[in-house]
Amino acid sequence: MLAGRFSPSRFDPSAAVDDDTLGLLLEAARWAPSAGNSQPWGFFASRPGEPEHERVARHLAPSSGRWARDAGLLVVTSARRHIDDTRLLYSEFAEYDLGQAIAHMTVQAQALGLAARQFRAFDLDGLTGELRPNPGWAIISMIALGQAAEGPSKNRDRRSVADLLSAPWADGPQPLAAPAVGQNRPAVLP
Amino acid sequence: MLAGRFSPSRFDPSAAVDDDTLGLLLEAARWAPSAGNSQPWGFFASRPGEPEHERVARHLAPSSGRWARDAGLLVVTSARRHIDDTRLLYSEFAEYDLGQAIAHMTVQAQALGLAARQFRAFDLDGLTGELRPNPGWAIISMIALGQAAEGPSKNRDRRSVADLLSAPWADGPQPLAAPAVGQNRPAVLP
Repeated sequence: MLAGRFSPSRFDPSAAVDDDTLGLLLEAARWAPSAGNSQPWGFFASRPGEPEHERVARHLAPSSGRWARDAGLLVVTSARRHIDDTRLLYSEFAEYDLGQAIAHMTVQAQALGLAARQFRAFDLDGLTGELRPNPGWAIISMIALGQAAEGPSKNRDRRSVADLLSAPWADGPQPLAAPAVGQNRPAVLP
Repeated sequence: MLAGRFSPSRFDPSAAVDDDTLGLLLEAARWAPSAGNSQPWGFFASRPGEPEHERVARHLAPSSGRWARDAGLLVVTSARRHIDDTRLLYSEFAEYDLGQAIAHMTVQAQALGLAARQFRAFDLDGLTGELRPNPGWAIISMIALGQAAEGPSKNRDRRSVADLLSAPWADGPQPLAAPAVGQNRPAVLP
């Protein structure tokens, strides 16, 4: 399921996301692990036709506006970086943990037959002025979720497992037995 | 599966992680989404009995040393924050995306009947000196993976779905139809 996941660049505008589905997506994010159970995440969720949706959609970039409005659900993600209006970190893992919660949400979407595409192609200042995050909170990304209107692209490249284990370290390739799966799997899937 | 996941504080020292399992865990991480497919993640993986394992384990804090050595696999995670030795960001989403890759790894572990616990209780300076990350890379966290030697704790609290939707925003609760699932689910699971 994880290997088959992909981020579509077109969504089916006729496929609505109902309340139960929205609840499952948020529930999945809610149960993600976080440093000291700090749960430094929050969301603004809206669907086409809801007044809140236009408040978000008007800040999409021209590029994302061409496809993100068609998704059955738009989620603005936010991380709690600081303690209120101090410069004290609420969690040094705020964005790492937000990423975990978003991954839970995208995996849950996949399990429900939906797809998700994360993006940063929006007017961050404009959206921040619109949604007015509380002190300590920052808008990080947006996610379009819904029914994909196309299959995966032909170029789903990833770095090899060997590269994941060697690229970060000055001493070069880690002398670990090459994992059986990564070794035999092509880096590009059809 | 996501709601049942938990981070154990004890692992079964007799349960080894074999090459196939290690391969699947890394493969799952590999296929995580990332900003512009930047894949800003890398790992140092070792298992008890391997020489590399002691290089990592000697930098565990006293607290994590009591349980992390028992796990069948220790993974040091790293993020590519900068472009080589410049101050230019490689990706502003490096840690967010690393979190996504780690979530994929923990979900894959759960699917294989294993458990994962992430932690920061180690000597970061000591481990950085030991593994010598390349310029631009930084060690972020460590993950113990293996067979849990205990069930979930009784206090698996999470913020409510309503709080996820309201806490970040100055205008208070978002007037969205309350999701059916989050609404009826207790915040504490048995």
